[in-house]
Amino acid sequence: MIESLNQAFCALPGVGKKTAQRFVYHLLERDRNGGFELAKALVDAMEHVKHCASCRTLSEKELCNICTNNNRTSTQLCIVETPTDIHAIEQSGAYKGKYFVLSGYLSPIDGIGAAELGLDELEQKLRTQSVEEIILATNATIEGEVTAHYISNMCKQFNIRITRIAHGIPIGGELEYADINTIAHALSGRKDYD
Amino acid sequence: MIESLNQAFCALPGVGKKTAQRFVYHLLERDRNGGFELAKALVDAMEHVKHCASCRTLSEKELCNICTNNNRTSTQLCIVETPTDIHAIEQSGAYKGKYFVLSGYLSPIDGIGAAELGLDELEQKLRTQSVEEIILATNATIEGEVTAHYISNMCKQFNIRITRIAHGIPIGGELEYADINTIAHALSGRKDYD
Repeated sequence: MIESLNQAFCALPGVGKKTAQRFVYHLLERDRNGGFELAKALVDAMEHVKHCASCRTLSEKELCNICTNNNRTSTQLCIVETPTDIHAIEQSGAYKGKYFVLSGYLSPIDGIGAAELGLDELEQKLRTQSVEEIILATNATIEGEVTAHYISNMCKQFNIRITRIAHGIPIGGELEYADINTIAHALSGRKDYD
Repeated sequence: MIESLNQAFCALPGVGKKTAQRFVYHLLERDRNGGFELAKALVDAMEHVKHCASCRTLSEKELCNICTNNNRTSTQLCIVETPTDIHAIEQSGAYKGKYFVLSGYLSPIDGIGAAELGLDELEQKLRTQSVEEIILATNATIEGEVTAHYISNMCKQFNIRITRIAHGIPIGGELEYADINTIAHALSGRKDYD
């Protein structure tokens, strides 16, 4: 029982044997209630959380809170890889439009193509709704760039502004510690200083 | 639901908001089965794991595997703070005796006294069983030292050898990186070189 709980914890990302053991002993020795609560929360979430029918993020309801929020503009659509990315952008407070979650990136070798990322749904959305701008906010990785490129190609058939979030030196970051690719990006993406 | 699962994960030691979120999204997006399995393992363990009646470690049975193992000598008793410590010592393969788990350390300010650490049981054990050596393997912290000192005092009434595990430079460790207390301990605990 202790061993199978250990193994079940090891299935979590970034949790190895030592960490799993710490979790198990903590719950058994100090917080059995916490263990029961975690079990209940797990079953609840696994059974009831589904994907928003509109933006594909994780949601307890048919449509998520952002999609049903009328105070947010529907003319901007920010394309992200995961629901966590939405959370990150929301915390910045710099965006008031809607989202579309790919749940991954294009990876033909793993069998993840346009259909798996819901790009058909996205195309349908662009065809039927009045979207004026697509913001490509996939990660700044090779896979993210490829995916962004593919989506921008797909969107060209529509009369839509297509943008990509800026890449460069992070705010508070020092040039000295930035990697060469970031510096190259920051230079080529330089803007007029006003 | 997502939020309460997040919070339930945050109750685990060393798990903050970001890590909890990673767990939640991983399970929801990629491994719902893993989520159900973790829930089941949690309930099983929380309901059925209890403490060994003899050594107080966590055990699924009345007596743990070590206490019921007749190949292990009962004349040596190693006193540790937690069941994890047993696991660590067992992995070293250097000990073939029995254990006694305190489940903590003396901390009068938190209301943790001799009774909470099971020292009455330990005294009873020493009175009734033929223990020849007590190995104090509490942590090398102030609390661990105080607890070891208390237990050694308690055991003086019996005709028993009382030892403390050695403290010094870890094997593979470099003197340069050891802290001053460890170095002081290593010097004062030096042995004749043979």
